[in-house]
Amino acid sequence: MASGKILVAQGGGPTAVVNQSLAGVVLEARRHHGITRVYGARHGVRGIVDEDFVDLTQETSHNLELVAHTPASALGSTRDKPDLKYCQEIFKVLQAHGIEHFFYIGGNDSADTVRIVADEARAAGYPLRSIHIPKTIDNDLVGNDHTPGFPSAARFVALAFAGANLDNAALPGVYVGVVMGRHAGFLTAASALGKKFDDDGPHLIYLPERAFVLERFLADVKATHERLGRCVVALSEGIHDGSGTPIAAQLAKDLEHDAHGNVQLSGSGALADLLCEEVKTKLKIKRVRGDTFGYLQRSFVGCVSDVDQREAREVGEKAVQYALWGERDGSVTIERTGFYSVDYRLRALAEVAGKTRTMDAAFVSASGTDVTDAFRLYLRPLLGSGMPDAYRLRPAPVPRVLRPQP
Amino acid sequence: MASGKILVAQGGGPTAVVNQSLAGVVLEARRHHGITRVYGARHGVRGIVDEDFVDLTQETSHNLELVAHTPASALGSTRDKPDLKYCQEIFKVLQAHGIEHFFYIGGNDSADTVRIVADEARAAGYPLRSIHIPKTIDNDLVGNDHTPGFPSAARFVALAFAGANLDNAALPGVYVGVVMGRHAGFLTAASALGKKFDDDGPHLIYLPERAFVLERFLADVKATHERLGRCVVALSEGIHDGSGTPIAAQLAKDLEHDAHGNVQLSGSGALADLLCEEVKTKLKIKRVRGDTFGYLQRSFVGCVSDVDQREAREVGEKAVQYALWGERDGSVTIERTGFYSVDYRLRALAEVAGKTRTMDAAFVSASGTDVTDAFRLYLRPLLGSGMPDAYRLRPAPVPRVLRPQP
Repeated sequence: MASGKILVAQGGGPTAVVNQSLAGVVLEARRHHGITRVYGARHGVRGIVDEDFVDLTQETSHNLELVAHTPASALGSTRDKPDLKYCQEIFKVLQAHGIEHFFYIGGNDSADTVRIVADEARAAGYPLRSIHIPKTIDNDLVGNDHTPGFPSAARFVALAFAGANLDNAALPGVYVGVVMGRHAGFLTAASALGKKFDDDGPHLIYLPERAFVLERFLADVKATHERLGRCVVALSEGIHDGSGTPIAAQLAKDLEHDAHGNVQLSGSGALADLLCEEVKTKLKIKRVRGDTFGYLQRSFVGCVSDVDQREAREVGEKAVQYALWGERDGSVTIERTGFYSVDYRLRALAEVAGKTRTMDAAFVSASGTDVTDAFRLYLRPLLGSGMPDAYRLRPAPVPRVLRPQP
Repeated sequence: MASGKILVAQGGGPTAVVNQSLAGVVLEARRHHGITRVYGARHGVRGIVDEDFVDLTQETSHNLELVAHTPASALGSTRDKPDLKYCQEIFKVLQAHGIEHFFYIGGNDSADTVRIVADEARAAGYPLRSIHIPKTIDNDLVGNDHTPGFPSAARFVALAFAGANLDNAALPGVYVGVVMGRHAGFLTAASALGKKFDDDGPHLIYLPERAFVLERFLADVKATHERLGRCVVALSEGIHDGSGTPIAAQLAKDLEHDAHGNVQLSGSGALADLLCEEVKTKLKIKRVRGDTFGYLQRSFVGCVSDVDQREAREVGEKAVQYALWGERDGSVTIERTGFYSVDYRLRALAEVAGKTRTMDAAFVSASGTDVTDAFRLYLRPLLGSGMPDAYRLRPAPVPRVLRPQP
């Protein structure tokens, strides 16, 4: 190829390992004599149309390794979802800079951007190789066993619920933890991996794959609280009723709580607060606490799955290899080949772009409020090594002296 | 002593290392031939008056070690704050079971309980040795350099803000993280240890030691946002105006948002949401996100300071040693003796009981919205070893081709 220039960018919500993919692209590309320049666009596609590029050929390998271990998008990210016109702008800039390989690390919207840009290049007869590199904590890309970023976020959620369960056992009551994932429940379901003993929480898990019925939720919480004296609930921010209306919006209306009518439903504590209020008032349970995990779950420093790190690095590396030795554009996907091992494959962009994967039916229990062993087996290896473990006392009771024995 | 029976209990909010102190008491006590039984009361003082005891002499050392590494109170905790009558009930039970040493792991309320129980025993001429063992993530016990539980919670907060800062740099806007600590700002101030580069967040820190003025807050956020294009705020749940009225209550009223008038101010996302709403509407900033760290910060599994673990173990061990070789009741306190080392001391219960320590003036910057280097030096060794670190690209800009250079 003539220019030997490549461009890499990061889009969408940051993850704990998205810089591993960046380092994978940059370090692999720099090994090849044909590659003369490795550019990074700042803040995703926005940086491309603004020509806001940095020359990563002038960054040290050592610092790239350190950045790889740092969460969130080192190049910056964007929420822009380019339409055809925006993609044409992108292509114009790539062409002007003589970019021959375009790598975009992101979710299904980013895959769609890559698809449209690739189409533009083909239509213009311009020799561009365009590769989408998967990334999303939501784990909602089709054609993938799982997506880089999800395992580390899942590790955070599992450990958070392991801790919340211990806290709730020490000071009993009802605890509601709200987890990210608007359409796919994978991350919320990961809470189940925080459970060790039979009576540990989360006792109830509510996924966006099932319609949420408030009365059933209250009955579930009541039954668990009566049985165990406490109840830990994991709940997706995306729960909605049968018609698809978000529960937070519905609750705010039902309760005539206008505050949350104006407050953004995601990125706020509204859903947890409103459900806690329902539990308190309708079930007359005194100690009810809600947490919204918010942004902690996607870029907490120091809670990373080593499996996730390795795979995020490899999808970046493979992307460059597919670009240099392959004959087509595509999206790098992860396939599971053993318990536990993976391999990578380049799928057509149209297979992945703009589509949303949700949880397989086999992963959700018949009750709809728990996961199956199939899901536990699916997720456990992704969480990586060194998962902390919780223990409890196995004590012998002491006979009472003053009161009748229990 | 005649019976050789000791009783240990845990009170108040759980921490990541409170079971280290429990293990310290139990394992040290079991080494002594004079000790015939080590009882644990379930759910603190509540379990004492209910005679809900377990015999920890019948638990293996191995499992006690595993429990020591598990967050939250393994014996269970309570929010009960005993008055004189309650303490008399406690004493009656201790006497009935022939308990000769009473250890209570908790905060300043727990110290006060120990003080009253010790007074009752003395007045009755009953030979009880009563020792308070410090524990609180709030770090608000007087007479202590710091308290077990605080360093691990501080580590969580520092790492959470390091991540939130990276996330906010990737997708710029305003981020408000609300941290526990009703009266003392230590834990909120710990957010400053998540900062590495000069322009890293948290850019503004609001402590309960300073009166919060909404207009000043908005002006601070505006100035930071104009300077950096983003702003990360760390804010204590306990912030209040000059008259001591909690800001959350005030905001809910100002905004005529009745939702949060009924919602508990702590343990909910209300404060973060209401402040984000203010920033959005008054400053016309579009991307504004709030997180309330909630219960994650006190019992997250896998975010523990090794220094905290060691010290929490030692205060339990020392408590038994003071009880067996000392001549008086008291509260075990931590004193700093080097950079970094500590020693322990048994202080009179009245010195610690029922008092609240807040941040020294020397720890808060003149602006009131940052900490000083004195605080950074104070806190850094407590966070322990293996603190993850964040790195960034140091990139060379690429000249534009289509547009004028910036």
